[in-house]
Amino acid sequence: MTSNTGTQRRPVVVQKYGGSSVADADLIHNVADRLIAKQDKGVDVVVVVSAMGDSTDELHALSKAVTRGAIPDPREMDTLLSTGELVTSTLMAMALKARGHDAVSLSGPQAGIKTDAVHGSARIADINTDRLRKELDRGRIVIVAGFQGLADSGDITTLGRGASDTTAVALAVATEAERCEIYTDVEGIYTTDPRLTPKARKLAEISFQEMLEMAVLGAKMNPRSIELGAVYDMPIYVASSTSYEPGTLIHGGEHTMEVRKAVTGIAVDRNVGKITVRGVIDRPGVAAGLLQPLADAGVSVDVIVQNTSSDGTTDFTFTVAQASVTTAAQVIEKQSEVEYAEVVVGSDLAKVSIVGTGMENAPGYAARMFSTLSEVDVNIDMITTSEIRVTTIIERDQVQKAVQALHDAFELEKTE
Amino acid sequence: MTSNTGTQRRPVVVQKYGGSSVADADLIHNVADRLIAKQDKGVDVVVVVSAMGDSTDELHALSKAVTRGAIPDPREMDTLLSTGELVTSTLMAMALKARGHDAVSLSGPQAGIKTDAVHGSARIADINTDRLRKELDRGRIVIVAGFQGLADSGDITTLGRGASDTTAVALAVATEAERCEIYTDVEGIYTTDPRLTPKARKLAEISFQEMLEMAVLGAKMNPRSIELGAVYDMPIYVASSTSYEPGTLIHGGEHTMEVRKAVTGIAVDRNVGKITVRGVIDRPGVAAGLLQPLADAGVSVDVIVQNTSSDGTTDFTFTVAQASVTTAAQVIEKQSEVEYAEVVVGSDLAKVSIVGTGMENAPGYAARMFSTLSEVDVNIDMITTSEIRVTTIIERDQVQKAVQALHDAFELEKTE
Repeated sequence: MTSNTGTQRRPVVVQKYGGSSVADADLIHNVADRLIAKQDKGVDVVVVVSAMGDSTDELHALSKAVTRGAIPDPREMDTLLSTGELVTSTLMAMALKARGHDAVSLSGPQAGIKTDAVHGSARIADINTDRLRKELDRGRIVIVAGFQGLADSGDITTLGRGASDTTAVALAVATEAERCEIYTDVEGIYTTDPRLTPKARKLAEISFQEMLEMAVLGAKMNPRSIELGAVYDMPIYVASSTSYEPGTLIHGGEHTMEVRKAVTGIAVDRNVGKITVRGVIDRPGVAAGLLQPLADAGVSVDVIVQNTSSDGTTDFTFTVAQASVTTAAQVIEKQSEVEYAEVVVGSDLAKVSIVGTGMENAPGYAARMFSTLSEVDVNIDMITTSEIRVTTIIERDQVQKAVQALHDAFELEKTE
Repeated sequence: MTSNTGTQRRPVVVQKYGGSSVADADLIHNVADRLIAKQDKGVDVVVVVSAMGDSTDELHALSKAVTRGAIPDPREMDTLLSTGELVTSTLMAMALKARGHDAVSLSGPQAGIKTDAVHGSARIADINTDRLRKELDRGRIVIVAGFQGLADSGDITTLGRGASDTTAVALAVATEAERCEIYTDVEGIYTTDPRLTPKARKLAEISFQEMLEMAVLGAKMNPRSIELGAVYDMPIYVASSTSYEPGTLIHGGEHTMEVRKAVTGIAVDRNVGKITVRGVIDRPGVAAGLLQPLADAGVSVDVIVQNTSSDGTTDFTFTVAQASVTTAAQVIEKQSEVEYAEVVVGSDLAKVSIVGTGMENAPGYAARMFSTLSEVDVNIDMITTSEIRVTTIIERDQVQKAVQALHDAFELEKTE
């Protein structure tokens, strides 16, 4: 059962292990155990690995030291960072071979991962699986260095921080794998951050759409990998790399095994800053006039709210990451050509959202959220909604109280 | 003067900097200074870099940790080790670009270096300089990761420890460079190890042949790089990476500027062990019968001496590295099928050689060496000679006395 040919192929499973799961020799052997156990079940195993522990941070520190404050050249940065995953992948192959299990490491380019030429955040254009397939057919466990690919120029590219998840899902799609398994330092996706309430419950499953909304939560999964899974309908299983406890299956949602609640989980982002531009003369182009200079300065804007008033002016409010709030205010004050009265900065805010596909066609969830928060004296600063999400911006020091109240109100501790 | 086309190309110089010359950000900027100064003189600069400081040792330690005593898979080891040079090459390019000088790093494969598939000690088969030439024509300083190449299989290979010198000389040949410059932590090639006598003198020049004999001395240059320089008549200049003191030019010897002495230098190897196999029944195949099992066991044999006696037996003596002497004795005792009386092990020996092309057609140098050693009571254990070298094996604790006496006797402190 160590090789197969042509039409009688064994099913493929792609696994991915993050940096904390391969941070030293013992952890690498822990993963090797799991890979061998998986292959012994009669499947072809492809495994994507991240850089060991904090080695990517060390490479960033080296680049900072030599560039002395200047921005490192992005092409050079990509080749530099790609070495972290190469180290893990070769060590994993050595560990397996030293134990008598045939294995081979492939760099992103060797695994056939072709990307565009946008250094630092390249997108996968195509995957040629010839080499990978050949190695699987020889009975080998194939270890692929995550997060990297090759541009047409022959230069190494990287897919952006945390993008080994994306490598794994893309390889699962390309090899027509049964599913993609992401092993990490949490046991799965929870109804909310377990540090905020002891009632947080691990979900057996969640839809791609819900997971996209929850992406910052718990497993801190890369949203691009979820999108990719959704587009190609590739089930993604998230579980612990150190236990065999059941994890969470992220899937297309058609074959729901659980009776679904309307609200699946509560997503929390504790690093929110707010900018309010008061007394903006309300004319066409105002939003673009405020937001384009921010985009040019590399500031990402999250929630945007605009209320029109009757006197021909408007208040324009948006949130940014807490760390960007000072920069954002300066950009508006110095570079925007929009006329306004004043810029007001708000800090130490948080974003609390209820998420669930069941909310889509059922009214009343937003109202219940607001009344629940009101009952525990949490003041709502801003509100924004999507079809499957209601988001509130509140004071950061009220997050725990809010999450506990919402978790109780929507009975998330119960599986039903 | 930042680019050139077609027939009006600028001369190319290939430089190489070793690990101790690029061990931190300040040292990398020191090298960047030197590269910029070189390019400002109107030449195209290709620079080969080694891994930073002891980073190669760190990668070896990682592989040892995961293989738990087993020998790491050589293919995986090559990819692992190749990352060390990638890191240096990208940091060097970043440092140059951060200072406004256009530069690009190329991995061995990107630099077109094709090798055979012998992992760990691959040989360069061919170099396709298209990419490298294109980058030079754009006015860029091109930094090439040393010590690595690409096999036809698409796998990374390495050329063996210390082989960044070989990369540099091979690139100099392939780009038709004026010369190859090796910058290191010594100022050049000396008449003997300066730690053994204060009279040791830096040579302005030395022939390829002499340098091959002296290869273990001072600059610790990789013999393969010298051979390559000799075959393609590519001059190699060895000098300090931190001073602008003149170094030593290794060249074909035809255009000697100095009046040549017969003896150019004294080479010393302080780690010699000796095996004597006594009472060997003297018949055809004896030498092979003793040496083949050693080769199979990976033990390198250096000096070999055999004396035939009149009673049909012979004593067969050879030297090995001090660290291999126990293994060598065991291999002879257990695996050789040759008949003999006993195996005698000698340790703590040293090899002292006088080297010089001038000795080739002038008799009496060997005699003067032996009488000089006799005058200072140094006993000679073994003797072996080549056309341009006389080698003696002596007790290790007599090395300093021997070298000082020989340095005086052959007047190596004088330039003539």
